Amino acid sequence: MPELRRDPVVGYWTIISTERSRRPVEYHSSPVTEERSCPFCEGRESETPNEIYAVREPGTPPNGPGWRARAILSKMPILAEPDGSDRFGRGIYDLMEGVGKHEIIVESPRHRHSLDELEVSEIEAVIQVYAERLNELGKDPRFIYALLFKNHGLISGSARDVIRHTRSQLIAMPITPKRLKEELESARSYFERRERCVFCDILRQESQEAARVVSENKRFFAFCPFASRSPFEVWILPKMHCPDFGRLEAAAFADLALILKQCLFKIRALLQDPPYNMVLHTAPYRHSKKQGYWKTLEDDFHWYWQITPRLTRDAGFEWGTGIYINPTPPEDAALLLRETAYATTA
Amino acid sequence: MPELRRDPVVGYWTIISTERSRRPVEYHSSPVTEERSCPFCEGRESETPNEIYAVREPGTPPNGPGWRARAILSKMPILAEPDGSDRFGRGIYDLMEGVGKHEIIVESPRHRHSLDELEVSEIEAVIQVYAERLNELGKDPRFIYALLFKNHGLISGSARDVIRHTRSQLIAMPITPKRLKEELESARSYFERRERCVFCDILRQESQEAARVVSENKRFFAFCPFASRSPFEVWILPKMHCPDFGRLEAAAFADLALILKQCLFKIRALLQDPPYNMVLHTAPYRHSKKQGYWKTLEDDFHWYWQITPRLTRDAGFEWGTGIYINPTPPEDAALLLRETAYATTA
Repeated sequence: MPELRRDPVVGYWTIISTERSRRPVEYHSSPVTEERSCPFCEGRESETPNEIYAVREPGTPPNGPGWRARAILSKMPILAEPDGSDRFGRGIYDLMEGVGKHEIIVESPRHRHSLDELEVSEIEAVIQVYAERLNELGKDPRFIYALLFKNHGLISGSARDVIRHTRSQLIAMPITPKRLKEELESARSYFERRERCVFCDILRQESQEAARVVSENKRFFAFCPFASRSPFEVWILPKMHCPDFGRLEAAAFADLALILKQCLFKIRALLQDPPYNMVLHTAPYRHSKKQGYWKTLEDDFHWYWQITPRLTRDAGFEWGTGIYINPTPPEDAALLLRETAYATTA
Repeated sequence: MPELRRDPVVGYWTIISTERSRRPVEYHSSPVTEERSCPFCEGRESETPNEIYAVREPGTPPNGPGWRARAILSKMPILAEPDGSDRFGRGIYDLMEGVGKHEIIVESPRHRHSLDELEVSEIEAVIQVYAERLNELGKDPRFIYALLFKNHGLISGSARDVIRHTRSQLIAMPITPKRLKEELESARSYFERRERCVFCDILRQESQEAARVVSENKRFFAFCPFASRSPFEVWILPKMHCPDFGRLEAAAFADLALILKQCLFKIRALLQDPPYNMVLHTAPYRHSKKQGYWKTLEDDFHWYWQITPRLTRDAGFEWGTGIYINPTPPEDAALLLRETAYATTA
């Protein structure tokens, strides 16, 4: 069971893999090349943990073919089911066991590398699984937040092999992540001063200025943020104020699927299939009353997808200051992304 | 002149290079191979900007041979001298011109790749330049903080070519970096509750537990922190409480030079010369009265060097939560580093 340890100075949490310590030489072994037989492809369901949820053809049983998108437990969980743990201290240090749930959302039965290679209707099924699993995990009172994200072409700190089959990860956790807390607190403070949602204000200004727009449709707006930390970073927001991604109505799935496909396609075409992160920022679960700032959440937070191509690597300056250096102004990035033709491949 | 832009939600600052926008294809060009003629080597002083400060053989004039360590202006400054700028707004957005000063500290007249390849007495000269330049920049009332750091074997977001000559960077800036602010505020809050410095408490517990110690001598203590975000991360602290690195007495240079050399040597030997960042955490300049928390700084902050080998790459989970995953517990890392024989090469 991994340990969650709290830094005694600033208070950030780190997940320490105590179960099996990675030795120095293992940081140097090159990643395994693309697997011959992918466990995420249709027909290989027996090679993955049991299905938790799937969008399926009517009448097909779980754990077999006939699905369009499915959620399974991770075989290498960052956080896992508890075995009777709790917070505890060790001198001035705080730690707890790494309680949580780590699911993998397989986005296609076919061996596709990138989400934007799927048809819009297939991406709609993926969005349905996202919303369903986010809402379902929220019913467990132990979980305060669930992070939904995608690592495209990236090896994260924990994984050692590379399987390119398109998928996302959903990790439910018992703490409020520091980065989300900052965002919630800042958005609340903005709301208290102005009685307006900061994200709605951003949408209004971006729509008027138009210089950083990437794409938009009836329900969604995509743009390169004013203070983008990474070149070609894109945010996708619903035009109507809404704090929870889980409340997304089925009628909006198609519009979201389309704008996601457009943005990811443009990034892949313009930047030669760069590695990227895609992270959902959404409100924490409402059953928790531990933090006062969740009370006003209805008005002051606004969910969005953040897509971050990983073209630069942060070094000493970024680590020491938290200030990132972006060599491509978002106005230039947005113009190039707008000019990149969106050609439907499906 | 680069622009400093403030994110309207959380308030972090980003440096946007507006002068010359980097095009998509430039993110893919492979780094230039090792230069034939290194401008940082002795005898090539005319190829660098003028010398700001140097430790020199008595009687040798500036901008020629005879130095042991020297500071020069960066040719590609992240922040530069202002040309009449100030903060201003654009709708809901805040920005300012990238005012500051960016110096390079060349650590050896010989073409050495790594700081630990230098003799202890040579590293003492480097430490003298560090302290001298930090203190000197603090006399300029425009600067609130100066970040001293080293990127070993790393290409940062702004640089495109690779020169391996060992050197550090010093960047004076007109804002308090967010990460430092968090650290100062947390340390002050710890002090207010307990009337003790959190770093002194950490030192006491680490010294007692002994499980995470890497090295120590009369004046300094090196260990792998309890909640290390990166595997094999090492902090070096003075044993006596002191908030400002700039106050370091010449009598302590040798002890610091030795422990720095030991730690960097062990990391290089154990991990096969990994890329790393080395960042100095020190108190902000005292002339500024803008922020109330600097008042108690004398007791509640404690300078330290943070050495972070870059063996993993943060991905969606880390970006979305601020929680890092460390696959090697610091107890294991410290044991391996302790067991790595320190052989003086010089």
